[in-house]
Amino acid sequence: MLHAREQPAPPHFHEGLEQLKGRLLEMGGLAEERVRQALQALVERNTSLIAQVIKGDDPINRLHVEVDTRCFQLLALHQPMATDLRAIVAAVKINTDLERVGDLAVNIAQAAQRYLDNPPVKKLTDIALMGNIAQSMLRDALDAYVKGDIATARRVLNEDDRVDTLKRQAFRELLTHMRRDSFVLEPSLELILISRHLERIGDHATNIAEDVIFMVSALDVRHHSAGSV
Amino acid sequence: MLHAREQPAPPHFHEGLEQLKGRLLEMGGLAEERVRQALQALVERNTSLIAQVIKGDDPINRLHVEVDTRCFQLLALHQPMATDLRAIVAAVKINTDLERVGDLAVNIAQAAQRYLDNPPVKKLTDIALMGNIAQSMLRDALDAYVKGDIATARRVLNEDDRVDTLKRQAFRELLTHMRRDSFVLEPSLELILISRHLERIGDHATNIAEDVIFMVSALDVRHHSAGSV
Repeated sequence: MLHAREQPAPPHFHEGLEQLKGRLLEMGGLAEERVRQALQALVERNTSLIAQVIKGDDPINRLHVEVDTRCFQLLALHQPMATDLRAIVAAVKINTDLERVGDLAVNIAQAAQRYLDNPPVKKLTDIALMGNIAQSMLRDALDAYVKGDIATARRVLNEDDRVDTLKRQAFRELLTHMRRDSFVLEPSLELILISRHLERIGDHATNIAEDVIFMVSALDVRHHSAGSV
Repeated sequence: MLHAREQPAPPHFHEGLEQLKGRLLEMGGLAEERVRQALQALVERNTSLIAQVIKGDDPINRLHVEVDTRCFQLLALHQPMATDLRAIVAAVKINTDLERVGDLAVNIAQAAQRYLDNPPVKKLTDIALMGNIAQSMLRDALDAYVKGDIATARRVLNEDDRVDTLKRQAFRELLTHMRRDSFVLEPSLELILISRHLERIGDHATNIAEDVIFMVSALDVRHHSAGSV
């Protein structure tokens, strides 16, 4: 073990892992809040809030780098095995997912900005609902990671179908509007785009939930099939 | 081949790393081929080829699990440090990217299937070109990973702009068609969707290229800022 090249005493592994989980929760909270703001701005036609979402991705990006660094340090200093190793590798993947959710919040805000250049096409209840589900999926997936809770992770996987159904409904409704009136073409396309961004946020929550299931349950499976982890 | 199961002594780390790189290349080749087939099927209106792409994601999914297992084994058995550690963590991320590219090939084929329910909307030269660029970005990004070649990785990052430009051009052209003729609404939407899937394949290649740059160059940076990896 190559302990302490520059630090005399590296923090204990599990203390480091707890800090890492704390950072991922913080990052998830920020990402979720930005998605919420982007949708609120869309529904309330609030252009200054949109501008705020578009410009402010820095804290998430900083956390993204910090989490990656922490993962490398925990791997290099402590050489974790089995569940601990899987928890760190899961953190690497979750970190990527959360950074992309932050990017998707920006994409939603950009589409919302273009949408607001036009009169409203329709009520946005379904988009708001999709957003709520995607956000709660993200929250639950991170909660499942922190607690190593497979039941919650499985619930997240089921929620994904609800987002898909809403996306398809919104698409059909928008198609009807577009057929009837070519003036609503562009704003309708922006709403279709936003619903797809929300679907992808749900997908990222699903990825996280799958990582949690692997982290918690793979020990025996992997041990049995590969005989070494 | 999961050596550790059959051999009492685990393979040497660098041998294992080379095997891992071989699997990622194989996976990249499969993913690229499936994107190519999906686009060929779209351009040639070949429904049986579309069906083939939609049904056949198994080899990529098997490689996805195998690569993950190999990464865990290399981490657990060899506790690599510095560049070697970053190469394995990069492999974990690249593995995720390639699996998603495989999924996107299926998404493209599904959209193509719906597109072919309608008469052609336009020539598909731009879509085919986007596909070629995205595929070569993917190939170059993996090549950069295997060789640890930063110059190639940076070239991939530049190519991403070309895909974005083509996507915007295709969008504007399709919007014109849709304004003129509401009958082409649905097939045009499918083409917009396909161009976005291709853009996302370019994004995955970009992610891989960024991982390569970090893998090769981060030693000094991280050492300076974090003092431990």
